[in-house]
Amino acid sequence: MKTVSENKCFGGTQGVYTHASDACKCDMTFGLFLPEEAAHVPVPVLWYLSGLTCTHENAMVKAGAQGWAAEHGLALIFPDTSPRGDDVADDEAYDLGKGAGFYVNATEAPWAPHFNIWDYVAEELPALVGENFALDMSRQAITGHSMGGHGALTLAMGLPGRFASVSAFAPITHPSASDWGRKQLGAYLGANESTWTAHDSTLLMRDKGFDGPVLIDQGGDDQFLDLLKPECLAEAMAARRQDGVFRMQKGYDHSYFFVSTFMEDHVAFHSEALHA
Amino acid sequence: MKTVSENKCFGGTQGVYTHASDACKCDMTFGLFLPEEAAHVPVPVLWYLSGLTCTHENAMVKAGAQGWAAEHGLALIFPDTSPRGDDVADDEAYDLGKGAGFYVNATEAPWAPHFNIWDYVAEELPALVGENFALDMSRQAITGHSMGGHGALTLAMGLPGRFASVSAFAPITHPSASDWGRKQLGAYLGANESTWTAHDSTLLMRDKGFDGPVLIDQGGDDQFLDLLKPECLAEAMAARRQDGVFRMQKGYDHSYFFVSTFMEDHVAFHSEALHA
Repeated sequence: MKTVSENKCFGGTQGVYTHASDACKCDMTFGLFLPEEAAHVPVPVLWYLSGLTCTHENAMVKAGAQGWAAEHGLALIFPDTSPRGDDVADDEAYDLGKGAGFYVNATEAPWAPHFNIWDYVAEELPALVGENFALDMSRQAITGHSMGGHGALTLAMGLPGRFASVSAFAPITHPSASDWGRKQLGAYLGANESTWTAHDSTLLMRDKGFDGPVLIDQGGDDQFLDLLKPECLAEAMAARRQDGVFRMQKGYDHSYFFVSTFMEDHVAFHSEALHA
Repeated sequence: MKTVSENKCFGGTQGVYTHASDACKCDMTFGLFLPEEAAHVPVPVLWYLSGLTCTHENAMVKAGAQGWAAEHGLALIFPDTSPRGDDVADDEAYDLGKGAGFYVNATEAPWAPHFNIWDYVAEELPALVGENFALDMSRQAITGHSMGGHGALTLAMGLPGRFASVSAFAPITHPSASDWGRKQLGAYLGANESTWTAHDSTLLMRDKGFDGPVLIDQGGDDQFLDLLKPECLAEAMAARRQDGVFRMQKGYDHSYFFVSTFMEDHVAFHSEALHA
């Protein structure tokens, strides 16, 4: 693992690191914020998964999360959204290939060798950061934006017991019924839709839900409402009697101006679950 | 004036606008955050001037200022740092020409026709935003980062009575004695150094100071300490008995991770002066 940069930030350290990834068979880069407390004791972890076109960097510089994480004594991990490098398959569209891993393990050509972001985020990266930093991996929570909200919700429901709480900003909620999903799950996982179920938050919520609190924020003026389908997840949460809150935020769009506005609430929400 | 974008943000609106500038003889773009209160009443204004290589956008997305401005009911204005466009002179170096206006009115070729950022920030843009938005232009304060900290300090001392308070993050304090300054003031203003005095915060502080409170934050591990020369301004402030605070922040560097860490303090500082 190599250190790309470390900047003091809100009393802690915002670092960027690269490492050779077994899961993705390429070098991967991630951001990690450690609060001041991590100098003395392992701290709880909040994962932030980013959306389409993003790298590890977008949320790290635009979401305004570090100040709140410092206040609550939490680490933040910002993984990349796909494998990278010249020998990694790509597509001309912004929503397939690099920057669009959709948090699955691809089984289909040409994606299969590298696009294993599920394994990367679920297994490889937790092991790496758990070994190398003062993190209490028994206390993890997860959030994300858009495609990253989809990732946070599917990982949280797909790995019962791993995360104390899950939240999302404008998540893709029902990819098997959306153009943000059918195209990518078809490309990465193939035409057999039974393999898609584990990567559809609405279906997972209907089937089993999440054993902990859930917080969803969705902008009412989001330009992608037709693709995100928040009504599907809201209905599924309510039908399951899921412990959770779904908030439609009037006037907000899909941007990081929306994400940063409600970041304080999300960090406080996870902190409560992690310190319970 | 044309609206480039408007995003709801912390209950208010983060807008980006372009207009034909008389001062710079080109189209100029700026960011403006209006808090919720501006829907009902004109609000006080905090200017944020950016550093080398920046546009209107950097601080708008990375400084984390909007949340604090919303809390204190302040507008934020993010001007660009230089004229723009194909017919505007430039230099291959990052620290001269586009992105490096240094908040002066250039008198020398090839810069003179367009590089009038002092007039732009001091006269043209205030008039434009005062006419078009719910701003109380009798209550203004100013801050900035690096070259923008230089701009904030020189404008504040150069326009007595305009600003209630001035602050800066890691400002270029003494450009007439630094490689971040001699090159640019020489290029824009010519070899006669008497014309530089109005654009040197240390000299202005020695000569007249500022009629209001001053707040300076400087990272102790800033990679540009030799160019910024914080000791010159600190000495001048103390020698003048300037109402103000100079803080050396141990371990912080020159990045926006530093700026965002102390933004809450700066916005609160200006709010106190603006609401006095």
